[in-house]
Formats: sequence, C-alpha cells, structure tokens
Amino acid sequence: MTSIMKLAADSTLSQDYFWMGQAINLARKGRFTTSPNPNVGCVIVDDKQACVGSGYHLKAGAPHAEVHALEQAAEKAHGATAYVTLEPCSHFGKTPPCADALINAGIKKVVIAMTDPNPLVSGNGIAKLQQAGIEVVSDVMAAQAAELNKGFIKRMVQGKPFITVKLAVSLDGKVALANGKSQWITGPEARSDVHRHRAQSCAVLTGSGTVINDDPSLLVRPEEAKIQQYPLPNVRQPVRVVIDSKGVIPVDSQLLNDSHTTVIATTNQALQLDGNEIMRLPAYNEKVCLATLVNELGKRQMNHVWVEAGPGLAGALLQAGLVDELIVYQAPLILGDKAVSMMTLPDFSDLSQAYSLTLAQSRQVGSDTKMTFSVKA
Amino acid sequence: MTSIMKLAADSTLSQDYFWMGQAINLARKGRFTTSPNPNVGCVIVDDKQACVGSGYHLKAGAPHAEVHALEQAAEKAHGATAYVTLEPCSHFGKTPPCADALINAGIKKVVIAMTDPNPLVSGNGIAKLQQAGIEVVSDVMAAQAAELNKGFIKRMVQGKPFITVKLAVSLDGKVALANGKSQWITGPEARSDVHRHRAQSCAVLTGSGTVINDDPSLLVRPEEAKIQQYPLPNVRQPVRVVIDSKGVIPVDSQLLNDSHTTVIATTNQALQLDGNEIMRLPAYNEKVCLATLVNELGKRQMNHVWVEAGPGLAGALLQAGLVDELIVYQAPLILGDKAVSMMTLPDFSDLSQAYSLTLAQSRQVGSDTKMTFSVKA
Repeated sequence: MTSIMKLAADSTLSQDYFWMGQAINLARKGRFTTSPNPNVGCVIVDDKQACVGSGYHLKAGAPHAEVHALEQAAEKAHGATAYVTLEPCSHFGKTPPCADALINAGIKKVVIAMTDPNPLVSGNGIAKLQQAGIEVVSDVMAAQAAELNKGFIKRMVQGKPFITVKLAVSLDGKVALANGKSQWITGPEARSDVHRHRAQSCAVLTGSGTVINDDPSLLVRPEEAKIQQYPLPNVRQPVRVVIDSKGVIPVDSQLLNDSHTTVIATTNQALQLDGNEIMRLPAYNEKVCLATLVNELGKRQMNHVWVEAGPGLAGALLQAGLVDELIVYQAPLILGDKAVSMMTLPDFSDLSQAYSLTLAQSRQVGSDTKMTFSVKA
Repeated sequence: MTSIMKLAADSTLSQDYFWMGQAINLARKGRFTTSPNPNVGCVIVDDKQACVGSGYHLKAGAPHAEVHALEQAAEKAHGATAYVTLEPCSHFGKTPPCADALINAGIKKVVIAMTDPNPLVSGNGIAKLQQAGIEVVSDVMAAQAAELNKGFIKRMVQGKPFITVKLAVSLDGKVALANGKSQWITGPEARSDVHRHRAQSCAVLTGSGTVINDDPSLLVRPEEAKIQQYPLPNVRQPVRVVIDSKGVIPVDSQLLNDSHTTVIATTNQALQLDGNEIMRLPAYNEKVCLATLVNELGKRQMNHVWVEAGPGLAGALLQAGLVDELIVYQAPLILGDKAVSMMTLPDFSDLSQAYSLTLAQSRQVGSDTKMTFSVKA
C-alpha cells in the first residue's frame, strides 16, 4: 500500500474536500434505505473541475453509487476523477464490481474517503484500480464518511450491530413518575427526532415491560418523522424486536397485531405467536442472554439497532457492555426523587464504578436538549 | 418621560452599542466587590469618537463609575457624551450625586443602559440631567446591563436577594452514591467555576446535612477560583449562612472555626456559638421558615445568594418558590437508580406537577456541561 497517497497534495486538497463533501451529502440520501448495505455517494469531476456525474446507493440490489455516476457521465468519465465515499468493491455481489466499472470507463484518478471496513476485502478495490494504472488517493474526510456508516462498519469488523440506547428524561434523570406516568416528558420536536432515528435503524429493540406498560407500535409514523425527500414511495419500517424472556406480553399488544412482523426474543420454549416471529435464545440469569441476542441480530445483517426501553433493559445492556452510544433527550423539568430513575444498576460503593461516557454532541431540539454520548466498550 | 428617546437614532446606534459594550465590560470588573452596590461602568467619548475617560465602581464607599471617568476626562468632558450602564444617581449617599457631577462637567449627552431599578428613585437622575439641558438616551443594551446586576435589581424591586441553587450531578441526576460518596462527580474545571460564583455572591447558603456530611469551608479558595485581575489585594469572602433548624452541627465544624464569620439560621432558642452569629428565625413545619430567612438576607442588603446544598434544602427552596436560577454542572457519568437524586420533592401523581424550567445557557466546562436554568416564580 506504499503507493497510496494518504494525503492529497496541497494544491488539490481543497478541491478534494469540496467534492468529497458533495459525495458524502449524496451518500446521506440513502440513510433510510440502504441497510444491510452501506451508504455510499459518488461524484465524477472532469479536468475543468466540472461535475459530470453523481449518484448514491439507494438500496440493496439497486446499482452502486459509482454505477449511477458513471452512467450519467457517459463518455465524459474518460480522464475524469471519481470521488467515492467508500472504497469501490472488487467482487461480484448482487451487482458487478465497481472497480471494474471505473477502470472500463477510463477514470484517471479515484479519491476515496475510507477503505472497505470488511477486513476480508479491505484494500482489494484500491489494488485493482492501481493495477489498472489509476491514481488512488484515500482517507479524504474519512471520519465524516465513517460517521455515515457506524452500523455497517461495526458489523463488518465485529459481526455485531451498532447499538444506540435512547432515553427521554427530565433534568433530574427521571423517565416516569412513581405511578408510571411518562407521557410526555419531552416535547414534540424530540419525539419527531426519535421517529427519524427509528427510520434509519434496522431494528427497534424494546423490553416486555415497555410493551405491557405503554403498548407502543414502535413503527415510524411518517407524519411524526417529517422526513423531507424520503427516497422511496413508502417508508421502510425497522424490524421490531421485543425481549420477552418469559413470554408474558399480551397477545393483543399493538405491535403483534399490525401489518408488520415483530420478533419476540424469549427463553420460553413453548411460546407461539401467530403472524410474528419467535427467536428462542439461551438464558442468562433467567433472562434472554443479551450478548447472544446481539450476535444473532448481527447474523441477520442488522447494522444499527435503536433501543427504546425502560431503566431495566437500558441498565442491563450497559452492564453487558453492549451499548455503543447513548442518546438522551433531556427536558427542562424536575420530577423529584420519588420518580423513576433512567438506569437500573447495582448499588455502587465507589464513584470509580460509575459508568463514564463521552459527550460527542449536544443541541437543542425544541425545548429539550439532545445529547449524544459515546460509550467505551 | 416622553422626552427620553427610547431608541437612539440609526446614525449613532452602532456607536452607542460599541461604547456601551465598553462600559459594560468595565462594570463587570466590579462583580466580585461592589455589593451591596450595583456594578456600574462609564465611558466618556468626545465628538471625534475618542474615549477621553472611563471607570467603574469598585466597592461601596469608593467613587462611582462616573466620577472616575470624569476625573480622567477633566476638561475634555465638556461637550462630550457619557455612556453609563445604570442611570446616574441624583441623591447624596456615601458620595455626592453623579447627575450633578455630569452636569457640572459640561457633558452634552448621556446614554444610559438601564434606569435605576429602585422604584423610589427611578427616573430621577434622568430628569435632573434633562432639566439641565442634557440629551438623554436610555435602554441601550438594557438586557446586558440588567444581567450584570440581577441580584441588585431583585433586591431593589422585591427587597429579597436573587437566589441561585447550584447542583453538581451525574447524567442520571444523582448527587451522591447511596453510601453518601459524592467526591468528585464533576471535574476540576467545574469546581473552579463554583469558586468564581462564590466569589461573586454576597452569601453562600447551605444546610446542616451538608455541614455534617462534608464539613466544607464554603470559602473562596483563590488558587481554585483562578480569577485573573482580581481588583483588590485580597479576595472578599461571601458570608456563609447555614440553615441548622435544630442546632445540631458539630462545634468543631470547619466553617465555625476559621477567621471568617458564619451565620447559623436556627429555630433553637438556646443555641450559642462563640465567634459566629446566631440568626433565630420562626419555624415552618418544624424547620427554619425559608421565606423569612430570605427576607432577612434581603434586609441585610444581600443581592445574590449562592446555594450549595443537598437534595432536601434544594427541593425545599424550589417548593417554597424561592429559587430564581438553577445552575447544574452535569458530569457524563451514570450512577444508577440506587444513588441519591438531586431534588427531594413530593410524590407527584401527574406530570403537570413537575417543576418546569427554562434553559438560559449551556456550555462545556471541562468534561462537564454547565446549564443555567431560570425558574418561574
């Protein structure tokens, strides 16, 4: 890999950043629909710095970003530079290899944001391009491109989905009053934002307690999500996964009786539920083994799992080391000490036992504060 | 007041904002030392837009801001414009009236950020200036000037100090582990910031529980406060006030045995403490009546009271409607449901009973988030 320039030359750096920024914006358009595939965008630029083709990956089975861009560019691709947010593939999947398409179109130079995260194929696309005499520049805006594909990258590297736990809490960290009332601690803007996150997730995970108490649908309601320019006629719904270790949720629960399938993760060998799927899993401390569940979701090609759960499941996932990210919508309310705390955890005897997070982002969403924390594994 | 222009003419508006901004910056220099007086800054500008004098009020008994600025300007004050952050006084206090000084110096125009908040004298200074033929423009950067003197304004209008409750909490709103351990939830930068707040307060208020558990000094430690350019040789310490309803704090507590006086607010008629002050107050629900205490602190000319207390006193002050502002230092830690919640409040049956705040400011302080909330009365 010594021949790959890890940094573009100064004279072209600002151009590269500009065009890669465009390619990343395009890639983002696929964020609701590409999974299990990654989000990828491509821009083709001629030697006069004019864009002659662009495209993004929309969904599995549909053409890759490079193919769209090359089609648009047609003969203008000859001698042009291609900006791609992810290393072009070099193998036959559902579609032919993009590296070949770039070579055949006469592309002169390829700028790549990040290499393929799959350790089995990483670097192969670049090698193929270089062998064909194409100049390759990589790692341009790598962090921004990786942010687009957190779930895909985690699954490629570890075989497991990226797990985000969402909590809607008061300033004093409460998720409900002692009597269970919790609607609504956060405001309508925060709830809209939650729907947009659901729409970008492969699965929405919850526990039996939430189903019993709130009877949620956990589907994306388009009128709540308010997504502008959704790229398909219908919103793609995430798979709902309910951890119901004993098999106790009511058969008339909303999420068991609509037109979408729900997966019930249980240790109950006898449980049967018509029209939904039972995922039988081993027990750990008399409950569904969470690590096994997460591995299973990875095997099902789920990139990103969004957890909307009560303090018990949220705390259990954190303790099991399975949480990658915590998104907290914090309302400017004080509910008091009698209310229900956001995370059930053991009684720590020393502050060093507390879970330490890193604040990655904070912004206002209506009158609430949305904070995104990364969690150390 | 019809002759007072409430908005400056467009042509001079940007100049007025510039110079008033300078006067406000000067006024801020007095924030550690002026109480019970307000923070005031003054800039004198000649007709060529050159600053010919400036000053700020340092402490009670010392000259007012206008006097410093006029002295510096000397004969250049003649025909000049004075920018003052607070309406010049028109009465003899510890010093002669500033309105007279401005008139005698031949000032042509006075720009004022805000009128005197004391309803008994508000407008008198302006009237005096106008009667002397001086053009007066008021309400230029009034909000910014008011922010400097929140405590002084509250006391002038309501006879009571402005009360800020400070809490250092985890993301899940906990102030200590179940075993009482709380050092340190927040980081050193947040603790430094707390010392700077103490240094700007007339009193630091706490409860007997905090004294018994933590034995704090509650003084400003200059090496922790890290105040650049403190305007006096020695840091002025706030008065410490401990609510000790029954009179139970240990006589060897740190804050009873240093070179500064502590006020013990109690309902215990027999309590005696050498070298400190006993403030006997009526009881309410068998504890010190908080409303009476706050009125008493107002009578003692305290502008701004900074509360560092446990969940019990913090919750009691909030319930009594005595809190103006809540400052929360939130650490990116999760302590879990067994830990101690930040506010002791009744068991609410409906979310409408929760206390609703307004987020005024949020910023990072080290790895913690400092959030300032205003509390509706």
